Amino acid sequence: MERIYIIGIGLIGGSFARDARKALPEAQFFGIDANPDHVAKAIELGIVDAAATLDELKEADLVVLSVPVDTALNVLPEVLDHIGDHTLVIDMGSTKAGICKVVDEHPKRRHFMACHPIAGTEFSGPTAAIEGLFKGKTNIICEVEKTAFKLQEKGLALFNNIGMRIRYMNAVAHDKHIAYVSHLSHISSFMLGKTVIEKEENERDIFDMAGSGFASTVRLAKSNPETWTAIFKDNEENVLETLDEYIANLEAFKHLLETKNYQGVHDAMQSTNHIKQILKGIE
Amino acid sequence: MERIYIIGIGLIGGSFARDARKALPEAQFFGIDANPDHVAKAIELGIVDAAATLDELKEADLVVLSVPVDTALNVLPEVLDHIGDHTLVIDMGSTKAGICKVVDEHPKRRHFMACHPIAGTEFSGPTAAIEGLFKGKTNIICEVEKTAFKLQEKGLALFNNIGMRIRYMNAVAHDKHIAYVSHLSHISSFMLGKTVIEKEENERDIFDMAGSGFASTVRLAKSNPETWTAIFKDNEENVLETLDEYIANLEAFKHLLETKNYQGVHDAMQSTNHIKQILKGIE
Repeated sequence: MERIYIIGIGLIGGSFARDARKALPEAQFFGIDANPDHVAKAIELGIVDAAATLDELKEADLVVLSVPVDTALNVLPEVLDHIGDHTLVIDMGSTKAGICKVVDEHPKRRHFMACHPIAGTEFSGPTAAIEGLFKGKTNIICEVEKTAFKLQEKGLALFNNIGMRIRYMNAVAHDKHIAYVSHLSHISSFMLGKTVIEKEENERDIFDMAGSGFASTVRLAKSNPETWTAIFKDNEENVLETLDEYIANLEAFKHLLETKNYQGVHDAMQSTNHIKQILKGIE
Repeated sequence: MERIYIIGIGLIGGSFARDARKALPEAQFFGIDANPDHVAKAIELGIVDAAATLDELKEADLVVLSVPVDTALNVLPEVLDHIGDHTLVIDMGSTKAGICKVVDEHPKRRHFMACHPIAGTEFSGPTAAIEGLFKGKTNIICEVEKTAFKLQEKGLALFNNIGMRIRYMNAVAHDKHIAYVSHLSHISSFMLGKTVIEKEENERDIFDMAGSGFASTVRLAKSNPETWTAIFKDNEENVLETLDEYIANLEAFKHLLETKNYQGVHDAMQSTNHIKQILKGIE
């Protein structure tokens, strides 16, 4: 691959460019971003070599679409309109059903591979882009059978080169399950941060009392609001379902406390303790 | 200090013993625990030198009480009954109002210093005890004026030697604020783990989709149920208040999503983003 275009050069696109550069030292990298400062910064940081526009995508070997998922729904069809015969387009969004649907009838559908690399940090923008973010991480690919065989091969070779594990999944199932293991965590963390800030905002030294446990639980509340508003909007039905179940569990726990059912409080926690075993290997 | 007795030789007591041993290489350390296996393990691991009983506390220079907070309410008066004229007793519990109240009229009240070192991990038992857990961490001391001046000095010298920062606080205020910055995080994490496990228990490979964000948010759900049942029980009123506010914020967020008020969704997250600045230095 010689010409790689990154559309949306923030944490995810920028980090992917860094890893791909290492894997493909001969390739040239181009940045496209609605925010010209982001492209300039990405060039300055050596993430991409130059700015580009959609009109140049005819020459692209690979286009990486790493914009908020609501923007991706608009941009992807346009990208497919511009690409050449040998171009592979991948996206990196946290939701997959909508994006697959929006290009399902597109004449260039076979040029697109729907991806969700499970990687990230709570930071954003090109300065947050780091090398090695994707190494050892899982990349979930949806509707792989709809991507042309040769282009699948090209994408998989790059992911393999970067050190990612591949999992294949149905797009609708992806969105349902990811709501539990990713989207809900963000809401729980944002609302925890909000609750504590509302109460303690004017007593800043109270945060001196916070330890690493609080910091860990509230870490995702530093995430980018644009990115996450788009995700919650695109995956609204699933997210609302997880949120209902979460609130119901909190209400049930509250009831146990209120009725002084401490055996119940204990058991609710104990039954969750085996998350230890389940998560082994993730951290 | 020559003779130090640790009552409750788990994560906290064991880690404190490890740090105190380093600070006081000449001292002898003794373990007292309701579970004889814990004492045996602590001796094997070199955390303490020998087992002991409450009857020996007359000889103690320092007694460290690091048992679940409900047990501490019963054990502390008994400990004070047994100590000698030069003994300092400190506790390490996450709640402070109850423990201060229970010994307020005790003839040996001036031998007790109420402490809450803000340190821990999600693991428990003597095998979880690690060196350096307390270094650089905050130790909140309550009602310090009720501790004899000479014994205050003795305790503070040790904390200083271990590398802890000291903060003084009213016990009732401590319990109110710690509910926000520590206790609520544990509930949000336990209930997040419970919600996801209930849904995905039979589809273990779904956890392949979980990334570091989920792991971080659910980390505290590995914590010890005995420890935390006791804390929630002892700090019930404050914990219920935080839980009510947390649930109200989750309901409000859900309402924003249901009514497709995406600007509101965005703003709720953005207004919480400055937790970044607030938490600087904790992680």
